[in-house]
Amino acid sequence: MTKENLIDCHNRILPFIHKTPVLSSRLVNERIEAKVYFKCENFQKAGAYKMRGATNAIMQLTNAQKQKGVVTHSSGNFAQALSLAAKSLNVKATIVMPSNAPVVKKNAVKQYNGQIIECEPTIEARQNAANQIVHSTGATFIHPSNDPNVILGQGTACIELLNEQSDLDVVFCPIGGGGLIAGSALAAHHFGNSCKVIGAEPFEADDAYRSLLSKKIETNKTANTIADGLRTQLGHHNFPIILKYINQIIRVTEAEIIEAMRFIWERMKIIIEPSSAVAFAALIKEKEQFKNQNIGIIISGGNVDVTKLPF
Amino acid sequence: MTKENLIDCHNRILPFIHKTPVLSSRLVNERIEAKVYFKCENFQKAGAYKMRGATNAIMQLTNAQKQKGVVTHSSGNFAQALSLAAKSLNVKATIVMPSNAPVVKKNAVKQYNGQIIECEPTIEARQNAANQIVHSTGATFIHPSNDPNVILGQGTACIELLNEQSDLDVVFCPIGGGGLIAGSALAAHHFGNSCKVIGAEPFEADDAYRSLLSKKIETNKTANTIADGLRTQLGHHNFPIILKYINQIIRVTEAEIIEAMRFIWERMKIIIEPSSAVAFAALIKEKEQFKNQNIGIIISGGNVDVTKLPF
Repeated sequence: MTKENLIDCHNRILPFIHKTPVLSSRLVNERIEAKVYFKCENFQKAGAYKMRGATNAIMQLTNAQKQKGVVTHSSGNFAQALSLAAKSLNVKATIVMPSNAPVVKKNAVKQYNGQIIECEPTIEARQNAANQIVHSTGATFIHPSNDPNVILGQGTACIELLNEQSDLDVVFCPIGGGGLIAGSALAAHHFGNSCKVIGAEPFEADDAYRSLLSKKIETNKTANTIADGLRTQLGHHNFPIILKYINQIIRVTEAEIIEAMRFIWERMKIIIEPSSAVAFAALIKEKEQFKNQNIGIIISGGNVDVTKLPF
Repeated sequence: MTKENLIDCHNRILPFIHKTPVLSSRLVNERIEAKVYFKCENFQKAGAYKMRGATNAIMQLTNAQKQKGVVTHSSGNFAQALSLAAKSLNVKATIVMPSNAPVVKKNAVKQYNGQIIECEPTIEARQNAANQIVHSTGATFIHPSNDPNVILGQGTACIELLNEQSDLDVVFCPIGGGGLIAGSALAAHHFGNSCKVIGAEPFEADDAYRSLLSKKIETNKTANTIADGLRTQLGHHNFPIILKYINQIIRVTEAEIIEAMRFIWERMKIIIEPSSAVAFAALIKEKEQFKNQNIGIIISGGNVDVTKLPF
């Protein structure tokens, strides 16, 4: 995946995404003793950076493929993103969701004309359901994170951040399926000025941390974290990129995630989801290491059930 | 209060305030069937537009007055704003607060070095306490809304909004003490292009609505509204301006306030306080009247206790 791939991808998706703002805060800078720049993908369409990768993946299909539609399995932000991207591009989207997915998430998909297929809440069942749709309709399966075109799309948030702040020493990303950090690592490599990318994970779902140590993809036996976007696993497309470019993954506790989330809500007055707070929590935890540096943070999304807050 | 007064005031306070962003949202525009521009004073220093008027009022004091400090009574955003403005300008601030004010609000004042004097939770007690401080220390009393320099300062948010969107047909403001709407009315008159200012009030504290009808200052017997910033009364400095320039005040129910607040949180991913939601609720309620217009809304603040949300 070359610099040109990234540039082409960015130009391709630009008409369909928001160029989200980069915010900073005097209070945050004082607390961290560094300059911190938040790339606010919580303001992205459908409320998360996932819109970028979903749009790019659909746009790279042939016309024949587009006519047969796309399918994914997701109960999270990618479900909404693929539905909205497909709607914008006049393509049919089918979303496999576990039967116990929250009604609010199902409604969000329906709002974007996504067709929901319910399945039992197991990884096997949702994979089977998706395979069946691919088989019966000829639709193209698009994985939420383990897909080169999705990875390229997710990297464009970091390109925009570096375009605005070219002197970043480091960019913090949460790690779930690995699409965002892989894309960001490529972006930082091609567009940064010796800019490192640091991963952030909950202790409760630290598969990427352990994978980086063992140099093979590790799994999570459980994933009891409030950061619902980070309960997923690395894949064979993004893991080699992570291995190549990422040297450090910082793990945080659930309490640290909640404290970081509340700090951003109360001080910056923006709504970020727990998965985004993981990246800021990691910076708070290791702030001594980054003192006086220029630091980017990808605020990955803002989709929170405001009736069920952890504070 | 002339156009020059407003310009001078704006230039004077600029180094001490944030130039807050103007946001818009495709989803909001679709819902309202108009173009809506949110002036985000929830991102202002100390979390509310009050910083503008507080800064201007202190800056207009003589050096001798500044040396003796300032005093106000407030349990809300003006308490924090005056404390922070005073700190920035190296002036001592004393804040009279009712003994039952939330600890979180007292802490915010302390964080900005404001000195808190507690009093019984009655209007009489807090006025007496403030008078006593003025008498014993020579400090200058600065009213949260009923003061010409405060009114001028609050008007600068609307100046910035009109500088960015010169074609606004109308600007919505919540009405509490009347400082924001009086300042905004002056700004719209001097800087707008036939731009009207519309007031918004809770039914539960509709003193301005009734005052506009009777053409004299009416009071609220009770003020059982979630919009805690709007429980206050108009004053003799801002009421004549309101009478002169404001033709319409729209009242909303508590349920409408909460629904509007939640819509902004969930769709725009920004934290606004209930008082700010009153202005957007008024627009939702009367949207037919404003169809296809260019509409500004002053989002007055974002100071919310996130542990006590109405949803």
